[in-house]
Amino acid sequence: MKTKNSRTEGSRYYPKRYDFDPNSRNAILDEGLVCHVSFLVDNQPFIIPTSYCRVDDTIYLHGSVGSHFFMQMAKGIPVCVAVTHVDGLVLARSVFHHSMNYRSVVTFGKTRLVETEEERWLAAEKFTEHVIPGRWEEARQPNKSELKKTMFIAVEIEEASVKYRAHGVVDDEEDLGMGIWSGVIPLKLAPQQIESDEAGIANVKMPDYVKNYQR
Amino acid sequence: MKTKNSRTEGSRYYPKRYDFDPNSRNAILDEGLVCHVSFLVDNQPFIIPTSYCRVDDTIYLHGSVGSHFFMQMAKGIPVCVAVTHVDGLVLARSVFHHSMNYRSVVTFGKTRLVETEEERWLAAEKFTEHVIPGRWEEARQPNKSELKKTMFIAVEIEEASVKYRAHGVVDDEEDLGMGIWSGVIPLKLAPQQIESDEAGIANVKMPDYVKNYQR
Repeated sequence: MKTKNSRTEGSRYYPKRYDFDPNSRNAILDEGLVCHVSFLVDNQPFIIPTSYCRVDDTIYLHGSVGSHFFMQMAKGIPVCVAVTHVDGLVLARSVFHHSMNYRSVVTFGKTRLVETEEERWLAAEKFTEHVIPGRWEEARQPNKSELKKTMFIAVEIEEASVKYRAHGVVDDEEDLGMGIWSGVIPLKLAPQQIESDEAGIANVKMPDYVKNYQR
Repeated sequence: MKTKNSRTEGSRYYPKRYDFDPNSRNAILDEGLVCHVSFLVDNQPFIIPTSYCRVDDTIYLHGSVGSHFFMQMAKGIPVCVAVTHVDGLVLARSVFHHSMNYRSVVTFGKTRLVETEEERWLAAEKFTEHVIPGRWEEARQPNKSELKKTMFIAVEIEEASVKYRAHGVVDDEEDLGMGIWSGVIPLKLAPQQIESDEAGIANVKMPDYVKNYQR
């Protein structure tokens, strides 16, 4: 499904780097841990990096009920939400053809304060499962007071544009024989040595969804 | 050095998560590969994810001279530039205390088209060295025609705010003994198996700055 318009029009220089398939959009959104949310206050653009999750065409954000930024968003304002994955460094022989492999989604929508308890509960569950599947059922779920302290904001995705680069080195023919090493260093957000919390840990095993965590 | 004002005021809820030391700001900026740049067009906030580098208090961006976004920025407009590192997942016993370890910088400034050949050359070198130190001296450096096709934009950092979380699990006392595994999964953007380009590769060794690449 290719839908183009003023906010999500592809570049005439790199048409191959755009993808308007909602499945591509969802895959990138579902892999990310942090999004960047942009909005205006008094004509000044602001960005907040924050965690999120997606349910169908809705992105959920959450923050403290006292947060200045979230209070702005509770009013219902236009925002742009972007998620980017850096997949690798592309080292060409010429500096000019150096590049990065990446996947990014830029979405546009309007914020809406989540008001019903049902949708807040849904968002809380999806947030947890978005970050680490399996955790919601095992962890101690929120009580009413905790849920009250959290503000959930929904952003209905009105438009989205996906951009990516996912290939090797492209060099000018005449540079190939220069004897300069060239190639791709793939990059991945990878789990490191896991640190168990020491308190009350006797007889508590590390669950498989933690041990085998991969993004 | 603590400087606070309307755009970079710390949260009254999490004062410990703010840091106004320019060295912290620079360390986070210098480690990142991609920034998110936010600006307005007709009252609509836009974000572009793009590569960058820093020289003193200036962030350089670059793009194709034909890029719509870069042509907007060439006019000199207010932008917000953010860089975020996800350092780990903090899995508390309660869903409510789940968190992430991260470091982020949000900067504010105005764009300026880089016009002199000297500053363009400097930016090109710094870009390359920002991504992979050692590469500029080895790769084939840009010629005049390549440099002409690239637009460099400078953003003088007027204000910046650094936020981070860098500690273990915080749980309510009464949840500690629940028998739920709890801890931190550290995350790192880590190099994977390097892929050498096949063309003209005879007798070309992989340089150490590639082999040992770490972000």
